[in-house]
Amino acid sequence: MILPHILDIVAVCAAKGVKYAIISPGSRSAALTIAFEEHPGIKIIMVPDERSAGFIAMGIAQQTEVPSVLVCTSGSALLNYSPAISEAFYQEIPLLILSADRPPEWIDQYDGQTIRQKGAFGEHVKRSFQLPTNPDLKEELWESNRVINEGLNQATSLPQGPVHINVPIREPFYPSQDEAIEFDEPRIINRVKSAISIDKSSLNELAEIWNKAEKPILIIGHGDPDAKLEKALVEFKKHTGVTIINDIIGNQHSIEGAIKHQDATLNPANSGIESLKPDLVISVGKSLISKNLKLFLRKNPPANHWHIQQTETLNDSLQNLTHQVICEPSDFFKSLRSLVKASDKNYADLWNKADQKASDHINQFLRNTNSEFEAYAKVLAHIPENTQIQLANSMAVRYANIIGLDSDKRNTVFANRGTSGIDGSNGTAVGSSIVNQETVTLLTGDMAFLYDRNAFWHDEPLANLRIVVFNNAGGGIFRMIPGPTNQPTYERIFETKHQLTAEATAKEFGMEYQAATDIASLEELLKDFFNLSNGPKVIEFFSDAESNTHTFNQFKSLFKA
Amino acid sequence: MILPHILDIVAVCAAKGVKYAIISPGSRSAALTIAFEEHPGIKIIMVPDERSAGFIAMGIAQQTEVPSVLVCTSGSALLNYSPAISEAFYQEIPLLILSADRPPEWIDQYDGQTIRQKGAFGEHVKRSFQLPTNPDLKEELWESNRVINEGLNQATSLPQGPVHINVPIREPFYPSQDEAIEFDEPRIINRVKSAISIDKSSLNELAEIWNKAEKPILIIGHGDPDAKLEKALVEFKKHTGVTIINDIIGNQHSIEGAIKHQDATLNPANSGIESLKPDLVISVGKSLISKNLKLFLRKNPPANHWHIQQTETLNDSLQNLTHQVICEPSDFFKSLRSLVKASDKNYADLWNKADQKASDHINQFLRNTNSEFEAYAKVLAHIPENTQIQLANSMAVRYANIIGLDSDKRNTVFANRGTSGIDGSNGTAVGSSIVNQETVTLLTGDMAFLYDRNAFWHDEPLANLRIVVFNNAGGGIFRMIPGPTNQPTYERIFETKHQLTAEATAKEFGMEYQAATDIASLEELLKDFFNLSNGPKVIEFFSDAESNTHTFNQFKSLFKA
Repeated sequence: MILPHILDIVAVCAAKGVKYAIISPGSRSAALTIAFEEHPGIKIIMVPDERSAGFIAMGIAQQTEVPSVLVCTSGSALLNYSPAISEAFYQEIPLLILSADRPPEWIDQYDGQTIRQKGAFGEHVKRSFQLPTNPDLKEELWESNRVINEGLNQATSLPQGPVHINVPIREPFYPSQDEAIEFDEPRIINRVKSAISIDKSSLNELAEIWNKAEKPILIIGHGDPDAKLEKALVEFKKHTGVTIINDIIGNQHSIEGAIKHQDATLNPANSGIESLKPDLVISVGKSLISKNLKLFLRKNPPANHWHIQQTETLNDSLQNLTHQVICEPSDFFKSLRSLVKASDKNYADLWNKADQKASDHINQFLRNTNSEFEAYAKVLAHIPENTQIQLANSMAVRYANIIGLDSDKRNTVFANRGTSGIDGSNGTAVGSSIVNQETVTLLTGDMAFLYDRNAFWHDEPLANLRIVVFNNAGGGIFRMIPGPTNQPTYERIFETKHQLTAEATAKEFGMEYQAATDIASLEELLKDFFNLSNGPKVIEFFSDAESNTHTFNQFKSLFKA
Repeated sequence: MILPHILDIVAVCAAKGVKYAIISPGSRSAALTIAFEEHPGIKIIMVPDERSAGFIAMGIAQQTEVPSVLVCTSGSALLNYSPAISEAFYQEIPLLILSADRPPEWIDQYDGQTIRQKGAFGEHVKRSFQLPTNPDLKEELWESNRVINEGLNQATSLPQGPVHINVPIREPFYPSQDEAIEFDEPRIINRVKSAISIDKSSLNELAEIWNKAEKPILIIGHGDPDAKLEKALVEFKKHTGVTIINDIIGNQHSIEGAIKHQDATLNPANSGIESLKPDLVISVGKSLISKNLKLFLRKNPPANHWHIQQTETLNDSLQNLTHQVICEPSDFFKSLRSLVKASDKNYADLWNKADQKASDHINQFLRNTNSEFEAYAKVLAHIPENTQIQLANSMAVRYANIIGLDSDKRNTVFANRGTSGIDGSNGTAVGSSIVNQETVTLLTGDMAFLYDRNAFWHDEPLANLRIVVFNNAGGGIFRMIPGPTNQPTYERIFETKHQLTAEATAKEFGMEYQAATDIASLEELLKDFFNLSNGPKVIEFFSDAESNTHTFNQFKSLFKA
């Protein structure tokens, strides 16, 4: 018999908008699996490897902006979710983890697939609940219903994030042969939306600071595409002429005139960058990829730095924050606009010129280098308009952030910069590809691709997924950063030199695979790479780590003059 | 410059007997990596996927009985160790996890590869430490040295287990170009061994219980091979005639006359098993695979049940424990022997006859079934004497436990029955194969093999590793247990039906691969499978899940008469 609270859990999920349950096979979790499978409002996806399942669920929730559900069996299974859970926690993506468990009296009794599941995600979930064990008692059925309501309300309140509900289940946990699975109308505890608005007099004080500032800049850190924010920023820029610096994961590429080559421009070795020093920084979003921007602003602290976000978390990563502004960013810029004057055109021009210079340098430089760097630029240039780019960590995000995106192509960009791990880039892209109609293109290194190869182990067709694997035979990033290459044992201990390619994995999972060893052959393959297909397609671009480093160093020296 | 406490950490590890450091590539961890690489007493193994690295380290520590060290970079990397850490915790295997971290002031500041690493393994480590951040201060250098001493002392005291030390490291974290890496003699805080001995009068009371008991049995649960215990048990059995029941993971296969077919014998459907009911149970070791033995003893509680182990953890998995006996088991049996009389021969004969009957049934049955079950028996029969067997979870441990091992072959058996996950069977076998000269044979299902395929992603030759993959195209276990097959959506949601084979993985990692589709071709391949080779070898045996289930059900019905 399926216990009544299990059906209630699933019915509450569906009523609160859950559309996907990512399920890994298991026996203890059977009732949950069957109930999700039977519910007409929820699609289930079976993924054997829980680590990849976690990232697929996260990728789906990131795109759909409603929680996706993870279901696993008892024992160490749920621990495999941990990397995805921590990424979702820092990216503030709503997830509901339902881990089946044995009843509490069996924990630590050496009796098969039991660990201390309760609270197993530690500080990387918003909340952690333990469901009651005897839901045939009326009081416990009420508790179970209340907890699932609260879990989903918490996952979707700001900051959004993962919520863990541990579900002890007694035997028998399979329905009987002739059991009809029917869902009752569940009890729903709605969470009515509320909004925070900024205090009028405080806003006037900020406007006064603005009006006295001479060199304001506005920085866009990690954030999902946000049309409302884009509109507010475009109008704010039009009115004030402010310089807007968009990190590639800031997703405000389409703002005309936004600065995008800050990383090249602000190399500490470059001369004359002091003139770009701001006296007011306004920031939105989470992390920044551009290390040079961060170093520049830490070294040259502005008199004022306001960070605008909807949650209480204090983000002082530039070490010079003066004001936390807790409200909806687009509202903030709309309100501020009516109170402030235009800023100095000369200062904005300095930024525009520097960005144009960097852009020219990059375009001119990236010809005939036959490097990984150039290959990234070619691939970015070929990605169709209005489609999505997923960037793996390590070099993919860095190269893409230096090159920047065309403002008129309206590509969206996603990357796991919550924890910046290489552990789930495939899974995140797979999740996105499952719920999107548009093409999803993943740019990844060989290490990240091989690490999360089990993300392809399921039945989803992924016909809109394109993957370009940049294979430099190991962790080429360690050549790019100063330090490791001085080490005599460098190749063995840092580069993870290997002979592996993406071919075996691609073919095993039925993907179309093609290899390119130079820019010309890459461009040839890119010509029809984005055409419709029945399944995912992979291009692997091979390059030499040593010559990539040489190219990258040459590039950096261009800006010294 | 490499900070002085980093060199001290490595020197203390070496002085305390650490021989292996399993390292995943990263930048924040560079100083640790370089220091371990440079130390002449420690071998490093680079493994890119931290999840597999964890299980490899665990496999090594299990075999060498000294802690192995895990080193990873900051961010989500360490969370990938969690499944292996929980397995090591429940198997009581000593591990030292050194996770490089950014200094604490940078946590939660949206600044690249930071998570809440401190205490990240929750309740699945024996202790969790945070190293100080300014080891150029004399007081903090003392603290660091003390913590690493305490960490290793804790990991190796009973119950042994994993210890986590989080290591914040400030930049610069690469040594300068001409820096000589030299290890000073470290300060060592020794932990002098102590022993617990059982109180004389308590022992007399136990002897009295024994002398009144008429039907004593002695059960061996999960434990490493233990020659001292074997000797004590052989002598105890010789003196008392007691019935010894050895679970396959009890590793006391070599005791002549030990019962091994308890699972077949005690099927609840069998008639006449009530006569086997004991009145005194003495148990050693951890978990039991045989579900029928557990059910039988829970249903038929003996008047007395003593569990003998060296640690305080209370294991009441049979639900009828009356005495916790905390001492070294071989000492206990030596001491008890001199105080007790022989037990009733008739009762022991009942067990012997039942075991012989089960053995005959199994041998007779497993001819020409052409099933997975028969294939397991053939492979076990071919495994060379004095070599090691690694059993994956799911069906591998179950089949092997039913079939049992020949007492004269002196095989040793390891299985991840701490948490019973399928997540690290490959890695554990790889770790064992790295440190052993003898052949290591892994028996595994297709799901477990594919799940942990990154366990082969490193440079170790593994020439002594043999793997037999039993491929039934998915999680065939769910057909074997009552319940799921009643479900209309069975194949999709339980069996994880897939077309994948081990071939792509085997070939990618340079293993010799051969496939068998029936018992005859399997036997042909087994003929020279165990001969010396330059690398690992894989046989994949294909069978049909449905017909396997039919065979297994037929087998169970044999005992009903």
